[in-house]
Amino acid sequence: MNKYSFLNDYSEGGHPKVLELLQSTNLQQELGYGQDSFCIKAESLIKSELGREDVDVHFIAGGTQANLIVLASILMPYEGVIAAKSSHINRHETGAIEATGHKVITVNVPDGKLTPELVAQGLSEYEDEHTVMPRVVFISNSTELGTIYKEIELKALSEFCKSKGLYLYMDGARLASGLMSGESDLNMKQLVNYVDAFYIGGTKNGALIGEAIVLVNDALKKNFRFHIKQRGGLLAKGRVLGSQFLALFESGLYFELGKHANQMASKLVQGIEGLGYSFETHSTTNQIFPIFPNSLITRLSELYGFYIWTKIDSENSSIRLVTSWATKEEKVQEFLNDLKNLKN
Amino acid sequence: MNKYSFLNDYSEGGHPKVLELLQSTNLQQELGYGQDSFCIKAESLIKSELGREDVDVHFIAGGTQANLIVLASILMPYEGVIAAKSSHINRHETGAIEATGHKVITVNVPDGKLTPELVAQGLSEYEDEHTVMPRVVFISNSTELGTIYKEIELKALSEFCKSKGLYLYMDGARLASGLMSGESDLNMKQLVNYVDAFYIGGTKNGALIGEAIVLVNDALKKNFRFHIKQRGGLLAKGRVLGSQFLALFESGLYFELGKHANQMASKLVQGIEGLGYSFETHSTTNQIFPIFPNSLITRLSELYGFYIWTKIDSENSSIRLVTSWATKEEKVQEFLNDLKNLKN
Amino acid sequence: MNKYSFLNDYSEGGHPKVLELLQSTNLQQELGYGQDSFCIKAESLIKSELGREDVDVHFIAGGTQANLIVLASILMPYEGVIAAKSSHINRHETGAIEATGHKVITVNVPDGKLTPELVAQGLSEYEDEHTVMPRVVFISNSTELGTIYKEIELKALSEFCKSKGLYLYMDGARLASGLMSGESDLNMKQLVNYVDAFYIGGTKNGALIGEAIVLVNDALKKNFRFHIKQRGGLLAKGRVLGSQFLALFESGLYFELGKHANQMASKLVQGIEGLGYSFETHSTTNQIFPIFPNSLITRLSELYGFYIWTKIDSENSSIRLVTSWATKEEKVQEFLNDLKNLKN
Amino acid sequence: MNKYSFLNDYSEGGHPKVLELLQSTNLQQELGYGQDSFCIKAESLIKSELGREDVDVHFIAGGTQANLIVLASILMPYEGVIAAKSSHINRHETGAIEATGHKVITVNVPDGKLTPELVAQGLSEYEDEHTVMPRVVFISNSTELGTIYKEIELKALSEFCKSKGLYLYMDGARLASGLMSGESDLNMKQLVNYVDAFYIGGTKNGALIGEAIVLVNDALKKNFRFHIKQRGGLLAKGRVLGSQFLALFESGLYFELGKHANQMASKLVQGIEGLGYSFETHSTTNQIFPIFPNSLITRLSELYGFYIWTKIDSENSSIRLVTSWATKEEKVQEFLNDLKNLKN
Repeated sequence: MNKYSFLNDYSEGGHPKVLELLQSTNLQQELGYGQDSFCIKAESLIKSELGREDVDVHFIAGGTQANLIVLASILMPYEGVIAAKSSHINRHETGAIEATGHKVITVNVPDGKLTPELVAQGLSEYEDEHTVMPRVVFISNSTELGTIYKEIELKALSEFCKSKGLYLYMDGARLASGLMSGESDLNMKQLVNYVDAFYIGGTKNGALIGEAIVLVNDALKKNFRFHIKQRGGLLAKGRVLGSQFLALFESGLYFELGKHANQMASKLVQGIEGLGYSFETHSTTNQIFPIFPNSLITRLSELYGFYIWTKIDSENSSIRLVTSWATKEEKVQEFLNDLKNLKN
Repeated sequence: MNKYSFLNDYSEGGHPKVLELLQSTNLQQELGYGQDSFCIKAESLIKSELGREDVDVHFIAGGTQANLIVLASILMPYEGVIAAKSSHINRHETGAIEATGHKVITVNVPDGKLTPELVAQGLSEYEDEHTVMPRVVFISNSTELGTIYKEIELKALSEFCKSKGLYLYMDGARLASGLMSGESDLNMKQLVNYVDAFYIGGTKNGALIGEAIVLVNDALKKNFRFHIKQRGGLLAKGRVLGSQFLALFESGLYFELGKHANQMASKLVQGIEGLGYSFETHSTTNQIFPIFPNSLITRLSELYGFYIWTKIDSENSSIRLVTSWATKEEKVQEFLNDLKNLKN
Repeated sequence: MNKYSFLNDYSEGGHPKVLELLQSTNLQQELGYGQDSFCIKAESLIKSELGREDVDVHFIAGGTQANLIVLASILMPYEGVIAAKSSHINRHETGAIEATGHKVITVNVPDGKLTPELVAQGLSEYEDEHTVMPRVVFISNSTELGTIYKEIELKALSEFCKSKGLYLYMDGARLASGLMSGESDLNMKQLVNYVDAFYIGGTKNGALIGEAIVLVNDALKKNFRFHIKQRGGLLAKGRVLGSQFLALFESGLYFELGKHANQMASKLVQGIEGLGYSFETHSTTNQIFPIFPNSLITRLSELYGFYIWTKIDSENSSIRLVTSWATKEEKVQEFLNDLKNLKN
Repeated sequence: MNKYSFLNDYSEGGHPKVLELLQSTNLQQELGYGQDSFCIKAESLIKSELGREDVDVHFIAGGTQANLIVLASILMPYEGVIAAKSSHINRHETGAIEATGHKVITVNVPDGKLTPELVAQGLSEYEDEHTVMPRVVFISNSTELGTIYKEIELKALSEFCKSKGLYLYMDGARLASGLMSGESDLNMKQLVNYVDAFYIGGTKNGALIGEAIVLVNDALKKNFRFHIKQRGGLLAKGRVLGSQFLALFESGLYFELGKHANQMASKLVQGIEGLGYSFETHSTTNQIFPIFPNSLITRLSELYGFYIWTKIDSENSSIRLVTSWATKEEKVQEFLNDLKNLKN
């Protein structure tokens, strides 16, 4: 048993306030399948947060499910989605998108972020009826590599997509961390102007389980509950999802939790830099990728949980450290102390 | 707002003991994706309950998802599943099975229960490579109509399936109620001898969400986690599912809850019969279908929540009343009192 | 080796004029994938025959392929097609429609023909997002049982479909025989007013292979070549399909061949009736279903090829006799003579 | 209208001997769906050619259909196929493989040929149940770039695949040209030892339409006709495919035609080299990729049909010239003469 796990941001359960609401409303009778009063209130809170009454909100148990339902609902059988080779849908969803019949058209992206130029590269493979027609661009914020989109970048991507008849969809599994990054100049109200659909990740930011799909573009809203049900995503006790998002959005908890996770990561970054180490990517969110000598990594792994990420050279590798709403500052300090000791 | 809802068995949240365990273990760090200590313990408890160490257990968020993952994992592209026309996969899953590429071959079944003869009828449509090849028989216990399988019936069906090279799969959304019926002579240890796979329903029997898929036949076990992940069913916080089943199976709670639901239904049945009304089906489980005059139904519906089920004749219809672990005896009594008053 | 096979209408190759055109144009260089001059001319001839310049015509190798491509191109993932239980897509295409992800919603139909009432029965199973949403009605003319649609019947069905937001699609595998039936008052120009899409069957009426899909409703035309290509139906030498339809539609050959097949079947009907036998269905097309004593069927089967169709009672069964463009009158006469002799 | 089209190897119809056989057997009555005497004889000839009585042979209308049926028949839902980024299934089949639910895992390949090292690169993306499991390696011979596999290369690939539990499948759309290349040391008898399945391309080598799928590995043979039927590939008049392969394999015609196409391409290569031009790839098959100045390409395109392939630099591009069984030597000479004149 190690001292603390930085393996991921879903090692603990849910934020206490989330559990409290589940508890206090537990015996209240409600309608099933997402038509309960908690889903309705949570939807209303999210709309307020976005400053948009015209969006549709649907609650779903997990991120892979959110991605496959949204993409399969948008795409005609012969259409595909452009994504970074490193993206979650391409790398870590066991072909969930292909299982719904659609190609993921990949482009190599060093920092996990798509740009108009990179999307254009994906588009350039399209010719005619012998090739898959690109229809959606898939991005995530923060990305798999901890990087974020600045407003100007997202705007450029959004405009490019519109000019090419492409929908822009954002996987927000780590949206709280992405938006609360010290370097982010995006907020929810701006975000909703640039994407056609996205999901607000709960699982990795304080919920027990749950993601909130937001459909912005009217063209994507029709009969969406049928898609959810068909893919097995319409929970009888939708109340469990709704009440969690209610707790998260009632008084800004969602953003506080993302901020806390970032602060813990930031503290790690400063400490690690202070010890003279560098990083594989420039991350200001809750996933960081310090580069350590392999021997140091071995010793660290006896004390802490984390993934070894990339082999940098014959003697050094990067590791991934992930913080969350549940990470205590003392654990961060303990890690830095141990790192300092191991270095010597 | 009515006095009480008998609409379904998922109107409330989870059983207090389920919530307690979620609460008490909340900050414990665990591995993700169902490899946490709660899933492991719950799996072990379920194996003990079944008296079988060799089965595989996987936890899933919902029933439609369980059905589609299991069936899609078993079937070759050209194979199909035989089911009652009234079965959940045929009637109320929005084509989830077909969306994975497979035909549901239906047979008309008056009481929701398949027999060797009815399965043979489904088989009779099979000819050669121009027809879908039946490979699985889908049943549920209790059924959509509240009926149950006796051991002798399940045994006969199981033997028939084996003799025809068919797998037998049971949807156990309401398994606790089915097994705890006063007329049931089946228990979990027997059940596991007769089916190749089944799921133990949590959502409708005390869990917030969750079903436990049990794979009995070795041929069905291989790489099952890939199927779960691809269909969007592998939750990062699998612990949430595991700890609920841990609470349900730690000291027989699962069966107690099913028994309680049945007792409440039974009390309703006795009271309604005592008032001179009859029922559409013979149910000893937690769904009952009394037949009332339409005018009475209208007045009842102002006081209680329920679905109108079948038009019996021009003046009478059946309604569905569902009880659950959370139904209090006083509510049942109140309903019967109101019914008596409305009758006069 | 029997004297003649009435097994089906694809026992021989193609009509001599079809082969002649393939031969005479063989070394002419043409563009691939259906953009050759033969496809273009055949498309033009078909449009003239329909009196409609605004339809789209696409040539495809076979009927199952035509059905699955058209239906999969129309349906959203959660939508299904209403069809007779006896229909080809439900009974004899190995789940081809389900393999594209869609449910076939069946209704029992004694004579193979759908009516507004029967479609309404299929619609009645639809409730909400828990059920598949019906979107297309599938019919065939002639049907699997040799019956045909009269204009008034097709008109009523068409109007009903429009009023319910359903598309009407006709499988025309045996369209020539259907339209040229002595009892048919439908022609191609009328037909096109009542259906949203259909296919003109070539394989069973003089072509070596090939069916011509006609898309009437503008909503169904977009990017259809992508659907064809994705399902493996866009032949490099599309010319082979185009030139066959050119031969069939250049001077009314298509209809002549259907008429001939019907005349041969009609001659069989008269002869069989003359011998005192009755039929399972009333067919005026090229499939007939006489009822014979089983002992007679056994002896007949030593001389002629045919399928035994339905067990009528313990001593009698129906058989299916199919005629085609290639059936010679002398073979029909020979069959009737043999039947007469066997009877005595 | 240009003097001659080198656009592709399917600009003309079928070889005269193919048409002759269709013609001479046209009125013979045969069983449907590939159970006719021509399919049976052609299957037998192909088995002799391979020196293997234990393989299964199935005839199919086109190459995309062959690829999608074979791959979908092999793969479990969560499995994928490793292929060159430039491969036909990845680039030019409109996502046909993904439409059956499977991921194409791509590797960058300069000359279109996979090697154990490149396959290992595809394998390296595989981790666990979060990633698609590679199960098949897809190659073509000749490749999209005109290159071929030598026996030693195919053997190495085959052994590597076996060692990794991967099936090896070869797309043989241009197999005749590949095997008859002057540099090829492979023949059909050797080939069958190295692959688990492949198809013998007819459409691009003398047939009107048609490909012959050969299943070598016993594990891939079961119920294959169900797969064909479900995907719309089981033609009622399968005789049309069988008799063409009968004509092609009766007396070595298939290989003669491939040889002729190669000779015409070789003559082009020599002539073009003689005029001082180079080539984008080293091809000894019927697709060649000479590099010409753009201005010359413009003038050439007024006389001949071909595709512009790759932009080499600001002033030069490669074009693709394809020869076939139908290409006459005089047309080749004419092209070379015109090229010489245009050069000056």
